[in-house]
Amino acid sequence: MRSRPSIPEAGAASALAELLERFSACGATPGGGVTRLCASPADGAARAVFAEGVRAAGGALRVDAVGNQFGLFSLTGQGDAPLVMMGSHLDSQSRAGRLDGTYGVAAALQVGAGLMTARRAGARFTADFCAVNWTNEEGARFRPSLLGSGTYLGRHTVAEVLACRDDDGISLGAALAEIGLAGDDAPPPRPACYLEIHVEQGTALEEAGRTIGIVTRNWGATKIEAVFTGVQAHTGPGRMERRRDALLAAAYAIADIRALADAWPGLLYTAVGRVQVAPNSANVVAARVAISVELRSADDAILTEAGGRADRLLAGAADRAGTGLTITSRGERPIRAMPEAVCDLVAACAEAQGLGALRMDTVAGHDALSFLGICPTGLVFVPSIDGIAHNEAEATDPADLAAGLALMREAAERLCRRGGDPVRAAQPEPTE
Amino acid sequence: MRSRPSIPEAGAASALAELLERFSACGATPGGGVTRLCASPADGAARAVFAEGVRAAGGALRVDAVGNQFGLFSLTGQGDAPLVMMGSHLDSQSRAGRLDGTYGVAAALQVGAGLMTARRAGARFTADFCAVNWTNEEGARFRPSLLGSGTYLGRHTVAEVLACRDDDGISLGAALAEIGLAGDDAPPPRPACYLEIHVEQGTALEEAGRTIGIVTRNWGATKIEAVFTGVQAHTGPGRMERRRDALLAAAYAIADIRALADAWPGLLYTAVGRVQVAPNSANVVAARVAISVELRSADDAILTEAGGRADRLLAGAADRAGTGLTITSRGERPIRAMPEAVCDLVAACAEAQGLGALRMDTVAGHDALSFLGICPTGLVFVPSIDGIAHNEAEATDPADLAAGLALMREAAERLCRRGGDPVRAAQPEPTE
Repeated sequence: MRSRPSIPEAGAASALAELLERFSACGATPGGGVTRLCASPADGAARAVFAEGVRAAGGALRVDAVGNQFGLFSLTGQGDAPLVMMGSHLDSQSRAGRLDGTYGVAAALQVGAGLMTARRAGARFTADFCAVNWTNEEGARFRPSLLGSGTYLGRHTVAEVLACRDDDGISLGAALAEIGLAGDDAPPPRPACYLEIHVEQGTALEEAGRTIGIVTRNWGATKIEAVFTGVQAHTGPGRMERRRDALLAAAYAIADIRALADAWPGLLYTAVGRVQVAPNSANVVAARVAISVELRSADDAILTEAGGRADRLLAGAADRAGTGLTITSRGERPIRAMPEAVCDLVAACAEAQGLGALRMDTVAGHDALSFLGICPTGLVFVPSIDGIAHNEAEATDPADLAAGLALMREAAERLCRRGGDPVRAAQPEPTE
Repeated sequence: MRSRPSIPEAGAASALAELLERFSACGATPGGGVTRLCASPADGAARAVFAEGVRAAGGALRVDAVGNQFGLFSLTGQGDAPLVMMGSHLDSQSRAGRLDGTYGVAAALQVGAGLMTARRAGARFTADFCAVNWTNEEGARFRPSLLGSGTYLGRHTVAEVLACRDDDGISLGAALAEIGLAGDDAPPPRPACYLEIHVEQGTALEEAGRTIGIVTRNWGATKIEAVFTGVQAHTGPGRMERRRDALLAAAYAIADIRALADAWPGLLYTAVGRVQVAPNSANVVAARVAISVELRSADDAILTEAGGRADRLLAGAADRAGTGLTITSRGERPIRAMPEAVCDLVAACAEAQGLGALRMDTVAGHDALSFLGICPTGLVFVPSIDGIAHNEAEATDPADLAAGLALMREAAERLCRRGGDPVRAAQPEPTE
């Protein structure tokens, strides 16, 4: 197998670094990270950088009704050619890293620009290319996560997504309109293949000494929204034994959900990261506390058993504190294998580029998972230094970022030369 | 001893009920309570009702730099007569009761109006009267509590109080200006006697079958603001054993602080009512969680021992979760007796009115406590039905509200006839 670098390598790494710098300036934090919550002014600024990048590279921008940005690069000159899509998200958590999502968007944009350059230099393609920025991947400001990609693939309706509200009661629709990103373009048709590159956010690649992670499976996740209902009261004159303290119930639950993970060390991850307390006043017994519970495992039996235990722990916490309990939502992300054909394509490209690859799981959710069961989809990782994620100190070696970009360019070029078909793209090219 | 009702009784109860209705309309909640956070538009509306009441009764309004509203009723016609002051607060917790604080303000206003009527009818007084609405008693929006009365008595500077910020970063100064209540009047001189009436917020009066509570002592309180500092991280790919979860530390602490109360059943009250989580996202391990801890007891030895244990529990919670711990503030309200002379005056007035009284503690803080050690001060309770407090269902029998008002009028009349001196006011009047 041989590499056919029709896209110029020279300057690609520095162009990527420069583009990442431009994105990082949008919502930059003093701690060296970004706070770029979905549809915030900072997100609007990053989206403007994306739009400008698409136009500068000769692409056409479409913004759909939920704010997904599609940069369409016509490589075939035909209106009905298959589409190869790459992308990720520009929204971030609060005080988060600069690369989470943004790296994948920047890489897709660079790949698109490179393909256009190759086309102008005479390269011939049989599929068009699209670089995409998905709205609200993080689920930090609006819930649930993966809203934009999920809507594109028909998992949510536009109306329900635009009606999602943040903690200040602002709807996604209103927030998008505020930053001028409530689009009305039709999204492009479903791609022949979707491929996303992302920083690993764990330490598997670092520990294995590999540059490229080929995600073959996602961990399952159970996400439970639980509300404890107490009786609002003065913390002073009311006797302790009369209390019905919703915050105490939540505290018991948080401790018990953490302890649940110890039943399956390393095989079950549990977390409570979000708590909403009302009225949240120092001298008032809490009337209502909502918590967001996450369980993650690669083993269906463990996830099922842990889900049942979590329900009993939540009920037990409510009982001990004398509060009510309501499960207001329960989301299950099944454990699924990524399509082998796309994994094989990534492996072939890594080999062609001389990059060491590791087949691995993803514990976190990513937009690529939205495509599972709908069209061929793949997810590629590059190493995260010390596995730091959702933290301003998140980092990846620039050489690894450049290697990941080269891999994505290789994959995109192969796909766009083979009508977007990952099976054909994974084969060695016939010598002409 | 005989009652000398120089203030007309007829219609007083219905006038009180009507005034309470007008206050209740300001920030009314669907659940029948009020949300009237300090310096909110709803608070501004209630303050306008107060101001109008002062003027309608022939008083003069002063608003000081921290928004305290003083309704001055000149009974002596002299500029330097002693002052008798009564009042409480119009601010509330979120979704709280209609009477907490407001009853005391309404009663003071009615008393002032009654004294002016008596004066016009020929009664002669040797002290002037002031009805007051203190800013930010609750500590719900701005912290600490008792800000307005504390500032009036020199416990805080105007500058530091106006700089207090709510959770949205809005300063008290800006919030007062927004509702047009940033005054610049000089507050009146310190009173010869301050007396406050309030709903009990507990069940002692109800259980004893008495109408009037004479507060002889306040429980001590230790208020600790603790911050747990974790390491922000993704809840997914990061291994459980690497977590430094600030919310988990807080959960351990909340459960342990609750258990601490069981060491002294009925003698120590503990609470955590407020939690601030950052970044507070479902899929992010919390970086920083602040909790507000309260310990209350009528026993100094218990409070001291419990305070020490609380410190160790907080440190232990941080250790177990692997987080840092900072105590950002620690406030101690000492256990103190209320001046006997004022208690005796209230007892004499209750007897004169034929009302059953009970000498009792206050567990909660009230503005009257700000006057301790500065000038004679008293605190009077009327029963709370089922002890419900800081809750929309808070209620008091209207007959008890009217009885409390009659008692305050009796006390005010006596004080204003005796130069504001509670010792002389407690004595039977010489028959002329």
